[in-house]
Amino acid sequence: MLREEPPPKLPILEASLLRVIDAALEEDLGMGDVTTDSLIDPGWRAEGALVVKAPGVLAGMPVAATVFHRVDPAIAVTILLSDGATVAPGDVAARVAGPAASILKAERVALNLLQRLSGTASETARYVEAVGELPARVLDTRKTTPGLRALEKYAVRVGGGHNHRHNLADGVLIKDNHLEALALAGRSLTDAVRQAKAWAPHTVQVEVEVTALGQAEEAVLAGADCILLDNMPVELMRQAVRLITQRAAERGLPRPLIEASGGITLATVRAVAETGVDLISVGALTHSAKALDISLELSYRVG
Amino acid sequence: MLREEPPPKLPILEASLLRVIDAALEEDLGMGDVTTDSLIDPGWRAEGALVVKAPGVLAGMPVAATVFHRVDPAIAVTILLSDGATVAPGDVAARVAGPAASILKAERVALNLLQRLSGTASETARYVEAVGELPARVLDTRKTTPGLRALEKYAVRVGGGHNHRHNLADGVLIKDNHLEALALAGRSLTDAVRQAKAWAPHTVQVEVEVTALGQAEEAVLAGADCILLDNMPVELMRQAVRLITQRAAERGLPRPLIEASGGITLATVRAVAETGVDLISVGALTHSAKALDISLELSYRVG
Amino acid sequence: MLREEPPPKLPILEASLLRVIDAALEEDLGMGDVTTDSLIDPGWRAEGALVVKAPGVLAGMPVAATVFHRVDPAIAVTILLSDGATVAPGDVAARVAGPAASILKAERVALNLLQRLSGTASETARYVEAVGELPARVLDTRKTTPGLRALEKYAVRVGGGHNHRHNLADGVLIKDNHLEALALAGRSLTDAVRQAKAWAPHTVQVEVEVTALGQAEEAVLAGADCILLDNMPVELMRQAVRLITQRAAERGLPRPLIEASGGITLATVRAVAETGVDLISVGALTHSAKALDISLELSYRVG
Amino acid sequence: MLREEPPPKLPILEASLLRVIDAALEEDLGMGDVTTDSLIDPGWRAEGALVVKAPGVLAGMPVAATVFHRVDPAIAVTILLSDGATVAPGDVAARVAGPAASILKAERVALNLLQRLSGTASETARYVEAVGELPARVLDTRKTTPGLRALEKYAVRVGGGHNHRHNLADGVLIKDNHLEALALAGRSLTDAVRQAKAWAPHTVQVEVEVTALGQAEEAVLAGADCILLDNMPVELMRQAVRLITQRAAERGLPRPLIEASGGITLATVRAVAETGVDLISVGALTHSAKALDISLELSYRVG
Amino acid sequence: MLREEPPPKLPILEASLLRVIDAALEEDLGMGDVTTDSLIDPGWRAEGALVVKAPGVLAGMPVAATVFHRVDPAIAVTILLSDGATVAPGDVAARVAGPAASILKAERVALNLLQRLSGTASETARYVEAVGELPARVLDTRKTTPGLRALEKYAVRVGGGHNHRHNLADGVLIKDNHLEALALAGRSLTDAVRQAKAWAPHTVQVEVEVTALGQAEEAVLAGADCILLDNMPVELMRQAVRLITQRAAERGLPRPLIEASGGITLATVRAVAETGVDLISVGALTHSAKALDISLELSYRVG
Amino acid sequence: MLREEPPPKLPILEASLLRVIDAALEEDLGMGDVTTDSLIDPGWRAEGALVVKAPGVLAGMPVAATVFHRVDPAIAVTILLSDGATVAPGDVAARVAGPAASILKAERVALNLLQRLSGTASETARYVEAVGELPARVLDTRKTTPGLRALEKYAVRVGGGHNHRHNLADGVLIKDNHLEALALAGRSLTDAVRQAKAWAPHTVQVEVEVTALGQAEEAVLAGADCILLDNMPVELMRQAVRLITQRAAERGLPRPLIEASGGITLATVRAVAETGVDLISVGALTHSAKALDISLELSYRVG
Repeated sequence: MLREEPPPKLPILEASLLRVIDAALEEDLGMGDVTTDSLIDPGWRAEGALVVKAPGVLAGMPVAATVFHRVDPAIAVTILLSDGATVAPGDVAARVAGPAASILKAERVALNLLQRLSGTASETARYVEAVGELPARVLDTRKTTPGLRALEKYAVRVGGGHNHRHNLADGVLIKDNHLEALALAGRSLTDAVRQAKAWAPHTVQVEVEVTALGQAEEAVLAGADCILLDNMPVELMRQAVRLITQRAAERGLPRPLIEASGGITLATVRAVAETGVDLISVGALTHSAKALDISLELSYRVG
Repeated sequence: MLREEPPPKLPILEASLLRVIDAALEEDLGMGDVTTDSLIDPGWRAEGALVVKAPGVLAGMPVAATVFHRVDPAIAVTILLSDGATVAPGDVAARVAGPAASILKAERVALNLLQRLSGTASETARYVEAVGELPARVLDTRKTTPGLRALEKYAVRVGGGHNHRHNLADGVLIKDNHLEALALAGRSLTDAVRQAKAWAPHTVQVEVEVTALGQAEEAVLAGADCILLDNMPVELMRQAVRLITQRAAERGLPRPLIEASGGITLATVRAVAETGVDLISVGALTHSAKALDISLELSYRVG
Repeated sequence: MLREEPPPKLPILEASLLRVIDAALEEDLGMGDVTTDSLIDPGWRAEGALVVKAPGVLAGMPVAATVFHRVDPAIAVTILLSDGATVAPGDVAARVAGPAASILKAERVALNLLQRLSGTASETARYVEAVGELPARVLDTRKTTPGLRALEKYAVRVGGGHNHRHNLADGVLIKDNHLEALALAGRSLTDAVRQAKAWAPHTVQVEVEVTALGQAEEAVLAGADCILLDNMPVELMRQAVRLITQRAAERGLPRPLIEASGGITLATVRAVAETGVDLISVGALTHSAKALDISLELSYRVG
Repeated sequence: MLREEPPPKLPILEASLLRVIDAALEEDLGMGDVTTDSLIDPGWRAEGALVVKAPGVLAGMPVAATVFHRVDPAIAVTILLSDGATVAPGDVAARVAGPAASILKAERVALNLLQRLSGTASETARYVEAVGELPARVLDTRKTTPGLRALEKYAVRVGGGHNHRHNLADGVLIKDNHLEALALAGRSLTDAVRQAKAWAPHTVQVEVEVTALGQAEEAVLAGADCILLDNMPVELMRQAVRLITQRAAERGLPRPLIEASGGITLATVRAVAETGVDLISVGALTHSAKALDISLELSYRVG
Repeated sequence: MLREEPPPKLPILEASLLRVIDAALEEDLGMGDVTTDSLIDPGWRAEGALVVKAPGVLAGMPVAATVFHRVDPAIAVTILLSDGATVAPGDVAARVAGPAASILKAERVALNLLQRLSGTASETARYVEAVGELPARVLDTRKTTPGLRALEKYAVRVGGGHNHRHNLADGVLIKDNHLEALALAGRSLTDAVRQAKAWAPHTVQVEVEVTALGQAEEAVLAGADCILLDNMPVELMRQAVRLITQRAAERGLPRPLIEASGGITLATVRAVAETGVDLISVGALTHSAKALDISLELSYRVG
Repeated sequence: MLREEPPPKLPILEASLLRVIDAALEEDLGMGDVTTDSLIDPGWRAEGALVVKAPGVLAGMPVAATVFHRVDPAIAVTILLSDGATVAPGDVAARVAGPAASILKAERVALNLLQRLSGTASETARYVEAVGELPARVLDTRKTTPGLRALEKYAVRVGGGHNHRHNLADGVLIKDNHLEALALAGRSLTDAVRQAKAWAPHTVQVEVEVTALGQAEEAVLAGADCILLDNMPVELMRQAVRLITQRAAERGLPRPLIEASGGITLATVRAVAETGVDLISVGALTHSAKALDISLELSYRVG
């Protein structure tokens, strides 16, 4: 097959992307730039390089380019390194050229977006590398930055990860909070799975979060499409994978997908992957990734 | 004086706050919640506690409360710990009570905002504590999350930090990029300061970024209100502070404020503060702070 | 089980609903109401009844109520018949009472939304009734009114139908257009299913549209979660259902869900359901439903 | 005269049109297209034809073209048949060419708008054809789809109809609901007409809805610019037209325009037009028109 | 008749009004109020009076009240003088009471709107007074402040004026620019009137702008509903009124309404009214009215 | 130095400018232009000149050009006179050429914005000219039109004035309302200045409003960066300037900037400037400036 892992592309509607960018520009530049407007002659031109300062994976180059164009269509942006490129300090990701004042005004917002998305892509890539040749996918969560979900989930894909649910409508995930409520009403995990299959669109999978082997077993038998092992120690996880696989085989059922979640770090992700789970979700990819250091270095042509 | 350090309060227009919250809810809940809608009877009620899982400083409690109300005005939120509270694992920050389905739907967006803002407040507090009894202020930068600037700058204040410029209009900051351009046009740092004072609103200060002692000296004599020492080693910083103080005294000028910036970490911030600078700005407060772990623990009343 | 078919509830964020309503009010009332403002004294009060004029199923009562409140919070709305109620001419769905001028101004927009949503619910109910005791679900499509998708999909559920995908992100549906492109690249339907499973979030099902028995067979073996029989004559559909069931059983695979689509009408839906398909999708539920006739009858109290 | 019936043109501000289109794209494509993104190589190109599947009148070609461009400016759209064209099954309305993935993503939203608007234009054309050579105009009402009023009123004109009021501000229409309120306050239909003329902008006409001959007579004498015969049987309508004409002539007044409204169908519209009314308004043109079936047929160029 | 001149009421949709107010608050208060936040304890309360400083007519009291509530629902506003009140220096229009910090933050935006609208109402009232007992209406134009049209047209009504067209859709006004274009195509003013009547909605009047007696005559005979005398000297205006009246009488046509426009000032408006025109439109009511001086005087309760 | 007074340039983000323009177009043209659509053939072309009718200073030429392009990108706009040009009646500011219908539709909104901004620039220029060779700057205030602040502050700069604060966040201005509140809490003007310096961002100046000499003296000694003399008679102002200068010199402090404000008119501004103040702020520049009369004169090419 040619395209088992298709290269991710910018998955954002132009209008949605501009909404994010315009809001950011409004915050920074809404009332003008008193420094640049005081000092920089509108006729001066500059060239600049987006220079990487730390190792990582780039994500958001088209976003940064759009910021520059949005501030001034006269800024030319040449992308030298694409989203997904593994970069080292000193690498030049792009060049910009145009009115010096406009480049100075756009700089911060362009970098804020690029650094943040590249930070998420880089962190994802570190997890993916730690998992190495094992088949487990590294997944994001819904713990994204308010307003930036689509962009951050894109950055996760750029870093080699996969996406979990985009939102509460595109996958059923029955959590302990749901199960406890149903228990009070006299209904079991099995009831929950059936009820979800009866009500939710047929297009989504039904996934169940479990914390103990007994629950995992019940979930298999109930026909869950996916089972999430929540905050289990690695050894318990391993047993759960074995048990789930066994029970499914006994009943002639397809083995549900198995997801591990909860406090998994770079230090532990390999061990988790070795338990045989299919999916490992990591909130920190989006809620706590360090920005990738990238800066804009300018040179001028006056006159 | 009674109120040298007034307690920060939520500085966001209701309409702006709702714009952030509605965008986040739209991302997560725009097409409904297929799990909750499948399983949770609209008549069921729940109570929940926002439980802190890691040490830090809370910020964003009113924001989280607004998220719950926005999803369903029938959710009652009782704030037990205010923004600025130093918290430890196990602390209960707030209680919520109301329709179980609504609480489940609001949970993620409320936590995403609260965890992120508390992460910034907590990181700020760590820097402020490291500076200790020294007079230097810890400052944020414009390296904020696109769309969340006002909220994140608020979180910095909650953590005991101070705000730098909100945007490019409320302070002149002449950087090397500006000075290089002016140099090509035959104009000096001194010219730059005068030009900015002649053009910018009289309500803003003129700050100059310098990287060498000679520049710092020129900035004092040019009448800069504030001098930013960019990426200087600590020893050079100390010399710069001394030089600036001396030159100002010789000319009978008020000593400009002195800001340190560039790669300052928790490990180095105390040494920087000891050089005598007035202000220390740290981009990582907003661009790389780890989310503070907080979770919602529910219990139900059925019937 | 208590709640196999939970009653649908309004699945729209308040902010999204108000966006729809405010846009509609702006269209109709943005520059005022010259008739009412000329003639109706602001002090006059009226009472009104929303009277049904044709048989059908109500949907959108809370939407209509919100329109009245949005025009004037002083209008009291008493809902007498809930969404999902089967109604006959003469039934009173709700009563309104308040300032006469405000009721007159809100009337058209409230009715436009209520009539349209009730039209979709009523049409859905007719299809569901035609399917009768057979297990096939009646589904909507993405052929919804631009801007009203969430509301119309809600109306379908109110009418007893189920929802298909909400959008292009919450389910994989491989159509002939995709398969033809892949064919040119030398890839088969089987490749397509595997590629989608390798790339798409694990939370969504993979459905394949087929037009011939051979394709249906390949889809089963490729592991499709659902197979859509597109525009097949009823007899061919029946054979396809049989073939799919057989092949799945032979391979020890769970039988994929089977969906029928394409030109199905009230006259044919029963026959389609009798073929044994699980799902029947009908674009006309949303793109061509006749509005349900409902009118506002007023009486006044002057003074 | 060259241009008694000028060809209608797209009457929508670009910004308003994009608001409608962007909202529709957000609904369908806001989180991406998991099928296309999984399967279709970004480098593949396609050509497509918008093929008409049912007889009718096209409306919205420029709207559909804008949808394609909005998703991807690289899609070329060649309009072959303009708005207003009478079409038959098999007619090709336009060709599109460009990146296959982008065309697949834009397809549904483009068709949803085009089919709906063409549905309204086609229904209008059927009424206009039924009226035939008689002078009566076929009019729309305010019973339009929330958010799409300007587009739907445009489609009515494309179909050969005319527009009634766009909103409550651009015409006085005194209905029974107004007259009853005034009656309680001791004021007559005559008072109402005078009061409206005294208060409303002089730029709008004053129209009065009547249900009986006596009222029609009073309306003429009061100086109404237009009289709406509401829900009258055809014979009564004929008498009303005669009476209105007579009374106006007796008083040397210009004969008011006469509008017929209420439950008029394709079956009855000709008879209504034969009564001599000038205007016939039909809510069903916009609230219940069947979408015109149009589909996109693709062919690919890979490589 | 009880209500020949009904008291105008706020004709703005809540959502539209809030859009104006929120934009204004965002401009002024979007990043907080550094003075108030530095100095005013959140617990302090204040009372304030909106005191009129110049003679005029109030307009916008409900708007100002909404500004205060929007900044802080805890601010109580007591309106003492309603829109339309004639005021003198020293009059107290309203009292506010609540958190001191909130009142200080809302002050400027509330006053900016109130002063501007009252300025327009006051200027209108001066024109209306100058016209005195004569029947001519004083009208606004479309020369309004971008974004504030509905509010300013409301202010004109508050000041005793009437509204001309709200926008280009709710009245036909054939100007010299249209006539010249038609002339090149060989079409006359008479053709223009007929064409407009054939095409435009029947709900709007057809008005023609003329600059000479001959044109006025042609306009009467063509059946124009209203004739606008553009920039005519008063004596020519008088002749035009006579001629129009005569020609209409000769043909048994109702006399068209006659509007005067162009450079009319407070000094000339009475003479214009004496010519017998029905309508006098004055752009300066909205494009050049002086703000009415109103200020907020505060007193505090600390504790 | 080449650029002591850099020429102001359009300081508005494209997105913000379009928000203003689109709102204005929506108000005027949202439902179409019934006159133009009735009469003007889409194929007709026109040329037009923006002709100045009164003496003044132009501001907003790029804004007007954007309005024309926004209505129809096919309109070509040639700017002949730039913002800041001093104009006389008869001057042609720009030429437009393109589809006649589009030019007619854009005319009013383009002129409304251009006339208003030019009105403010012209009024500012009159004040600047009155100040003449004296060094005092003429400043605007926050008394701007809601929604148009950035544009109006730009127009002030175009007219030769300078900007005061853009909003409540970019400068501390301690007014009597703040001082009275603090007084009740036992705190002095000196306390207020210190408290503001301790809390507000270091990037903004601290300005204090005073009404008496004693207050002015206290403000100097407290270290205020700027002192605003509010509503002082000219003679008192002169004394205040002298006193402030003296006290600063005695203490070796830099002399604070001194601003005059309150009821300053064209008649008095020169005398105020002669007192030696540095800054003179005038609310009337934005809240009461008369629109500059500019009109569009068209000629047509038909065929």
